[in-house]
Amino acid sequence: MAEKYSSSSLAKYLDGEFWEVKDQIRGEISSCELFQSNSYDLTLDQTRDLTVERLHYFLKLPQIRSQLKDQVKDGQNSFLAKSLGITELLCSADMATGVKLGVVCGLYGGAVTKLGGSEQKEQWYLPVSELEFTGMFAMTERGHGSNVRGILTEAHYQPSTQEFIIHTPCEDAQKMYIGNAMKGNFAAVFAQLIVNGEAQGPHCFIVPIRDRHGVMYSGVTAIDMKHKEGLHGVDNGILIFNKVRIPRENLLSKFGTVSEDGVYSSPIQSKGSRFNAMLAALTPTRLGLTVQAMAAMKLGLIIAVRYSHSRRQFGPKDQDEVKIIEHQTQYLRLMPHLAAALALTFTTRYAARLMDEALSQGQDLQSNRSLQALVAGLKAYSTWQNLACLQECRECTGGMGFMMENRIPSLKCDSDVFVTFEGDNVVMLQVVVRELLSQYTKQLGDSVVAGLIRTWTSSASDSFRTSLLGFNVDKVGDLSFLLKAVSYRERVLQRSLAARLYNKVEKNKDEFFGAWNSCLHHVTGLALAHIHRVTLEQFALAIQECQVAEDHALLMKFCLLHGTSLVYQERAWYLEHKYLTPSTSRQIRTQLLELCKSVKDAALKVVSDFNIPACCIQAPIAGVANPRAEWAFYSQPQIPSAQGTLSKL
Amino acid sequence: MAEKYSSSSLAKYLDGEFWEVKDQIRGEISSCELFQSNSYDLTLDQTRDLTVERLHYFLKLPQIRSQLKDQVKDGQNSFLAKSLGITELLCSADMATGVKLGVVCGLYGGAVTKLGGSEQKEQWYLPVSELEFTGMFAMTERGHGSNVRGILTEAHYQPSTQEFIIHTPCEDAQKMYIGNAMKGNFAAVFAQLIVNGEAQGPHCFIVPIRDRHGVMYSGVTAIDMKHKEGLHGVDNGILIFNKVRIPRENLLSKFGTVSEDGVYSSPIQSKGSRFNAMLAALTPTRLGLTVQAMAAMKLGLIIAVRYSHSRRQFGPKDQDEVKIIEHQTQYLRLMPHLAAALALTFTTRYAARLMDEALSQGQDLQSNRSLQALVAGLKAYSTWQNLACLQECRECTGGMGFMMENRIPSLKCDSDVFVTFEGDNVVMLQVVVRELLSQYTKQLGDSVVAGLIRTWTSSASDSFRTSLLGFNVDKVGDLSFLLKAVSYRERVLQRSLAARLYNKVEKNKDEFFGAWNSCLHHVTGLALAHIHRVTLEQFALAIQECQVAEDHALLMKFCLLHGTSLVYQERAWYLEHKYLTPSTSRQIRTQLLELCKSVKDAALKVVSDFNIPACCIQAPIAGVANPRAEWAFYSQPQIPSAQGTLSKL
Ligand SMILES: Cc1cc2nc3c(=O)[nH]c(=O)nc-3n(C[C@H](O)[C@H](O)[C@H](O)COP(=O)(O)OP(=O)(O)OC[C@H]3O[C@@H](n4cnc5c(N)ncnc54)[C@H](O)[C@@H]3O)c2cc1C
Ligand SMILES: Cc1cc2nc3c(=O)[nH]c(=O)nc-3n(C[C@H](O)[C@H](O)[C@H](O)COP(=O)(O)OP(=O)(O)OC[C@H]3O[C@@H](n4cnc5c(N)ncnc54)[C@H](O)[C@@H]3O)c2cc1C
Repeated sequence: MAEKYSSSSLAKYLDGEFWEVKDQIRGEISSCELFQSNSYDLTLDQTRDLTVERLHYFLKLPQIRSQLKDQVKDGQNSFLAKSLGITELLCSADMATGVKLGVVCGLYGGAVTKLGGSEQKEQWYLPVSELEFTGMFAMTERGHGSNVRGILTEAHYQPSTQEFIIHTPCEDAQKMYIGNAMKGNFAAVFAQLIVNGEAQGPHCFIVPIRDRHGVMYSGVTAIDMKHKEGLHGVDNGILIFNKVRIPRENLLSKFGTVSEDGVYSSPIQSKGSRFNAMLAALTPTRLGLTVQAMAAMKLGLIIAVRYSHSRRQFGPKDQDEVKIIEHQTQYLRLMPHLAAALALTFTTRYAARLMDEALSQGQDLQSNRSLQALVAGLKAYSTWQNLACLQECRECTGGMGFMMENRIPSLKCDSDVFVTFEGDNVVMLQVVVRELLSQYTKQLGDSVVAGLIRTWTSSASDSFRTSLLGFNVDKVGDLSFLLKAVSYRERVLQRSLAARLYNKVEKNKDEFFGAWNSCLHHVTGLALAHIHRVTLEQFALAIQECQVAEDHALLMKFCLLHGTSLVYQERAWYLEHKYLTPSTSRQIRTQLLELCKSVKDAALKVVSDFNIPACCIQAPIAGVANPRAEWAFYSQPQIPSAQGTLSKL
Repeated sequence: MAEKYSSSSLAKYLDGEFWEVKDQIRGEISSCELFQSNSYDLTLDQTRDLTVERLHYFLKLPQIRSQLKDQVKDGQNSFLAKSLGITELLCSADMATGVKLGVVCGLYGGAVTKLGGSEQKEQWYLPVSELEFTGMFAMTERGHGSNVRGILTEAHYQPSTQEFIIHTPCEDAQKMYIGNAMKGNFAAVFAQLIVNGEAQGPHCFIVPIRDRHGVMYSGVTAIDMKHKEGLHGVDNGILIFNKVRIPRENLLSKFGTVSEDGVYSSPIQSKGSRFNAMLAALTPTRLGLTVQAMAAMKLGLIIAVRYSHSRRQFGPKDQDEVKIIEHQTQYLRLMPHLAAALALTFTTRYAARLMDEALSQGQDLQSNRSLQALVAGLKAYSTWQNLACLQECRECTGGMGFMMENRIPSLKCDSDVFVTFEGDNVVMLQVVVRELLSQYTKQLGDSVVAGLIRTWTSSASDSFRTSLLGFNVDKVGDLSFLLKAVSYRERVLQRSLAARLYNKVEKNKDEFFGAWNSCLHHVTGLALAHIHRVTLEQFALAIQECQVAEDHALLMKFCLLHGTSLVYQERAWYLEHKYLTPSTSRQIRTQLLELCKSVKDAALKVVSDFNIPACCIQAPIAGVANPRAEWAFYSQPQIPSAQGTLSKL
């Protein structure tokens, strides 16, 4: 191991349960030549080849191999939590390799292991851990991205040969954007299953694309989509199938099978629910995107915070120039993002735990509505948070932040698509609200909207609100005030959405799509309010569990900052609802400024405790020397001592 | 000419005074092979070479040559307005070429023509129009970016040889980020002038860098900074001077000269004011950045609006899928940006007119405080607006918007640095407020803060406010209400900032830097409020002058939308100040949603009337065929007829 990692109590706490494995992997990455440096001179092909090499190196690590083997077994304890930790590290080292791992193991692997039977898992996924072949995940079509239910690719069963015929009937049915399409061997293809002329809805099939020497199978065409804003190492392409025949056994069998003589059977009767169940089974992968976004965010923050503590510009007359972190706007732009990154760390851990528990108990994920809502919402919130964070990091590092060698530009470009793929964010927010909705309706066994209105209007009792309105002005800074505020907002938005939909759909008999669409701004607001509330709660809970007094105190400041920043962002709403008075609203702003100021020095400790190896940080302005850009080097600022840090707090 | 341009009355109105020249240039760009297509396969060197070719082609156009010749003459009528029109077109065709033109003609050319005497202009700039050489602008140093007053490069006068010795005394004094540093021949270098051991503050010198064959002059080192997030065609580098000797005549002489025997003289006595005067003389160039940002913004909007009118996804049960523009979130994300792009069009035109008037009357720009404030503020507002706009365009075009061939990614990456260079935005906002401040103090001949507080507190009379508070609820939608609201906000922020600074500096005798810094959030808020107000006013005035009834009606909708969106963004502030009640605040939201909806179809006409040639738009999803990305082609949606458009409004 080339390097020591932070072994502070906070670093361990942020790392969580799997800190030991993570430290091993940090060591592996730091000692591997492939990850030591990024060249920005490579051609697209060279970049893709390098990504493949990196991925292979990573898949060969003993820790990763054993993890992949665990994936094939069902209900391994904490499998997801551990996977996420590993994913985050690989993404810090190289985002494209991380995304490619996500395609092969998360998406393709997820499809085979969650939708396939046990023999299928052994056949189609286990060899990946032996580097025998790789896979891809082909769901999106040209005509259907977000509305994936409408895919048009066909899979006709032919009893005479016991084969499915996979076919692209029109341009809109072409599989598009498929990651690993120019290199991978097998694709998990979603297609409309047709047996005896009867459509059974979308199902997932394993289709061989090219052999191990790269020779395409007949009937399959792959078109390279070439240059993207980022993720240059990931080869995205278009797949077109011209009556490709695959054996009957290649239909992943968990949610539907076809007998030799062409009889379809499925544990789920309705086509719609069947597809929903498949999609629900795939959601664990979605959480991967949240940690990918977190990896980018943390890197950006390390770089921007360190540079802000080294770089000096302007100052009082006839005195030394000040560190740029001292400018009020500078700490105001960076510190709330650091708080959000911490909140996301704890919230993702919580979601992974819920998911792991559900999986190890063999629970049906689809019916766990609140978990589905949480995962969809976290995907949207974290990926948007990341973009906002990286943009501030870019701007706060001035001209240096525009130079590739300082890493922020590629982080931005690579992670920009996170808001789009694995579920467009605006669509995800609608999933959040739909899941929350269904949760209540199901309990009541009633029509969606009627159920909704009844529960939501009664559950958020007015007495709760009244008691809050009596709060003491001095207490705006309390965590309990902030927790109540975000929770109140969620509930009021729920109730009012319910009332609006009820009026439109039940009373006025408006068509549902139009009614929903006319409330879309409200819907997305509610979904974000839901996630905001959960992140603040999970942050607060994580602090309660933190045993080290110093860490506890430090995290508490950031938690207050996160809460204050959430309320500040929505202060217009709180004022409209008279939850804040003009003077308490101003107090929230003052509090935001003061909290940001009070944590700006401690921020150096926090970013250090993110525990990211220097070869992943790369940026000379963050103190990582680089012979290609000596002009950008700023030595790493000193972390204030614990004493100093605490006394400032 | 390969192509017809929109000749609608609106297109002409948006084009403004110079529509004929612009149409000629559109024709030239459209018929030039070099601008027909972008390849994303080029190496950095190839991209830079292509940019040089494009720039040469452009500089050779008769319209451009005559414009460069006008630049050398002083006070040409409408010179700036015409330049901006031309710049915007070139930036639409290729941003790197536009920026390189900005470096050579705006920055280098601006330095020579604004800081040099008439012989110097002939010698150092006229040959650029003959393509004899190009120049660069070397102000920024490693140690001093925003705080450019602190530059350390030295220029010692040596009477014995009548030379200046240009020298880089330390690493922090290296000229950094200099555009055209790897290709250009002469640099306008800012250095501390030292005559007879006495420092006279920063002055600008013409330093030969390399000859026409690319051979470096002795003592000059140029280091390539290589890869950036964008603007790959622009070669940025570091310049280091090791006692480089240049003739006495190479000191640009307008604000200071040195006689043969080493006597310094200047029309301005104080060193500080002298440098301020130089910087002020250079401000016309800054307006160039606003049109560069507008070019990017308009391209993004054309692409996103057209695709949103072609692409379909989701819809009512058992019916056709709807165009994605029909989703409430989609039009809510795009339409306010379109309104802002229009507002910026008219505001930039206004600023250029003011500047041209001032210049043709030989006015001293430095003392025109409100113009300085406007230009600095527009730079910050427009470049941030652009980034926000392009981000929405990227997200609103889903996976397609992540593909390079659809142009949005490169627009984003190229224009990201606009918020940083030619004056970091946060610093620009402080310039706005400082200029506004000085404007009043100067009138009163008093100390900054005392003058400020007296004027600002009295000028914003309370009766104004009271009369507004009596507004009728129905009138929230009126333009006059919106105009008053943005103006009220600016005034109140002024008064309260004045009061805060007065208390800190005059009463508590706080040190100024610290006092100002503790108000920085307030300062930036005021600066933006100032610019918001001006954009809305200029939009409103431009409508008054629009003679065609249909265009007038259409623009009015967008103007209302712009105003509503400005008030909506700041509704928390209005609520805090009881300028909006909770119910009028909600009304503003409803109005925003309704206005966005009402213009979403007319948006197609507006983007078409931006009048940008197809070879500039490039994106297949906007209906521009591209053999390299046939899979991305969506044919251009039909523009609703004028009747249809109007009836919807
Ligand atoms: C780099 C990259 C890699 C990818 N990898 C894969 C892969 O490996 N396998 C795979 O199957 N797919 C992959 N995808 C596809 C990806 O999942 C889709 O791009 C994504 O689902 C969005 O679909 P779309 O691009 O068609 O956008 P659209 O669905 O067309 O969305 C376009 C716009 O319409 C809006 N919109 C759509 N529906 C609604 C609605 N109901 N309400 C409000 N707004 C709406 C969206 O918000 C967005 O602004 C990848 C995409 C990219 C860019
Ligand atoms: C692509 C590119 C091309 C360029 N071309 C040229 C060129 O041709 N010629 C040339 O001379 N220069 C050029 N520049 C330099 C450019 O003008 C500077 O990058 C810019 O002035 C910012 O300076 P900086 O990078 O040192 O950032 P800094 O000034 O160090 O700013 C860093 C951070 O500190 C903050 N900050 C600094 N001061 C304050 C303050 N007082 N209050 C609040 N916050 C503050 C900023 O907001 C920013 O967030 C170029 C830069 C780039 C990136």
